[in-house]
Amino acid sequence: MNKIIDLFKIKYPIIQGGMVWVSGWKLASAVSNSGGLGIIGAGSMHPDVLTEHILKCKKATSKPFGVNVPLLYPQMDKIIKILIDQKIPIVITSAGNPSTWTNKLKDSGSIVVHVVSSVKFAIKAEKAGVDAIIAEGFEAGGHNGREETTTMVLVPLISEVISLPLIAAGGIASGASMLAAMSLGADGVQIGSRFVASHEASSHINFKNIVTSAEEGSTILTLKDLTPVRLVKNKFYEEIKKLYLVGASSQEISDYLGKGRAKKGMFEGDLEQGELEIGQVSSQIKKIKYAKEIISDIVKEYNRVLDILSKQKI
Amino acid sequence: MNKIIDLFKIKYPIIQGGMVWVSGWKLASAVSNSGGLGIIGAGSMHPDVLTEHILKCKKATSKPFGVNVPLLYPQMDKIIKILIDQKIPIVITSAGNPSTWTNKLKDSGSIVVHVVSSVKFAIKAEKAGVDAIIAEGFEAGGHNGREETTTMVLVPLISEVISLPLIAAGGIASGASMLAAMSLGADGVQIGSRFVASHEASSHINFKNIVTSAEEGSTILTLKDLTPVRLVKNKFYEEIKKLYLVGASSQEISDYLGKGRAKKGMFEGDLEQGELEIGQVSSQIKKIKYAKEIISDIVKEYNRVLDILSKQKI
Repeated sequence: MNKIIDLFKIKYPIIQGGMVWVSGWKLASAVSNSGGLGIIGAGSMHPDVLTEHILKCKKATSKPFGVNVPLLYPQMDKIIKILIDQKIPIVITSAGNPSTWTNKLKDSGSIVVHVVSSVKFAIKAEKAGVDAIIAEGFEAGGHNGREETTTMVLVPLISEVISLPLIAAGGIASGASMLAAMSLGADGVQIGSRFVASHEASSHINFKNIVTSAEEGSTILTLKDLTPVRLVKNKFYEEIKKLYLVGASSQEISDYLGKGRAKKGMFEGDLEQGELEIGQVSSQIKKIKYAKEIISDIVKEYNRVLDILSKQKI
Repeated sequence: MNKIIDLFKIKYPIIQGGMVWVSGWKLASAVSNSGGLGIIGAGSMHPDVLTEHILKCKKATSKPFGVNVPLLYPQMDKIIKILIDQKIPIVITSAGNPSTWTNKLKDSGSIVVHVVSSVKFAIKAEKAGVDAIIAEGFEAGGHNGREETTTMVLVPLISEVISLPLIAAGGIASGASMLAAMSLGADGVQIGSRFVASHEASSHINFKNIVTSAEEGSTILTLKDLTPVRLVKNKFYEEIKKLYLVGASSQEISDYLGKGRAKKGMFEGDLEQGELEIGQVSSQIKKIKYAKEIISDIVKEYNRVLDILSKQKI
């Protein structure tokens, strides 16, 4: 009896993060074929590219998979139409107002899940009628909340006020941290960084190697006045830091960022000038693996740690 | 078989944080009498005051208790002499180099535990010969590390590289979060904020009320260029923020802080001009309780959640 397993009809309550420039059909289908929920990250795809990935994913797996859509992106009408036409079983929405599209997606048969980083937005998403919530803590890679609430604190807070199935994200890359998340009140976990360092991820090998060599303190949450994002402290970040130190305006910083930094870093492998979005938990990731191995390692460790703790009641 | 229970000879692996202006003999003895490890916070005590608290604590409990000493404070020779003369069973050191005093304390029979916020310092403390490590995450109240590593990420990282008993701190105020910490590889937990809102804490009632009314986003880690500290975003903090925004130097900010802000806030109850050090987890604390009730609630919830999870292997 697990709410996430029941909702998504999957074997393990492990959802792969739908990350821009990382999560294409190869990774999504590999995760779904291994018993988790694979997710295509639509945030970095033009509508026709998204359609291609969906079709390929359907060919590669007969299991449920999902698509992650950042609601603030352009051409949202077209993207939503594709999801509906393609009868995508699970749609994960983020970065935007869940009340705009949830009903339309649900009416067409999709399960809708919304990503939040605060209690306030969790309540808002529940009111908008979503089917589950992903609660993402401060340590997570990529775009993030302003309150800086960590997974350890955020998950119990949200679990207390909503009755929907709850998925924890941020800081989770192993069976031990998955068990921690479940202890905090989550029904399942979303794992991002660990799957960046997978053979099936579409991320550039240079970026995968940066992930497996990351240490504590390698990442930082920055651009808090624009859109907060956790990324690797590379040369690109050092420039941002310098601009803040000399008191640059949000406009000046925005001008420096320009366009296409995430693609340049994560997809093209430019480690100096590109934006490398990754979580703090990259410091625990030492090896590029196949999605199947990642999931089986997590499940084994989860059950092993649970077994040990079960024998040590206090 | 629990390393922390064995090391400290206590009933539950729950250590109460030795917090300045909060943790006097009343709180420490109440925690020890309830099966946890009570800690006197020497950081806010003159040597003679510390002696008084130790003597009163000995009268109030026959159970083991400890003293927390921030090693960078003045009169350290005198403080260490008191700890040795009084045969304090457990000394927790923080904010300073563990190699300076560890041997002297251990030679006199004390168990020495050091607080760290990074892997680097955990390794250093292990080399210095301490008996256990407290790993404190970004969400913790009071003084904190520069890497901003959260409890969820820090505990597995440190657990991987050291073989000493490990205590997790930061974001823990309930049985659920204690179980999360133990899942991450900790052998016990240190709990601070939850004990601030206890009847026995010496903190001012105004401060206790601020803790029980805190919400997500009520605290922030600031003063990163001086000594990073997590505190309540009150009027005092808003002034600090303004100074940073106009590009004030570290010296100017240090001048604004002046002396005695922590006492003013936490002990005297000046909520506007005082420094109110507390963790993110204050957002989960709704009621002032007795130490005994806090511990029994945590233990009950720990076992209840563990029971539920044990029946749901994945």
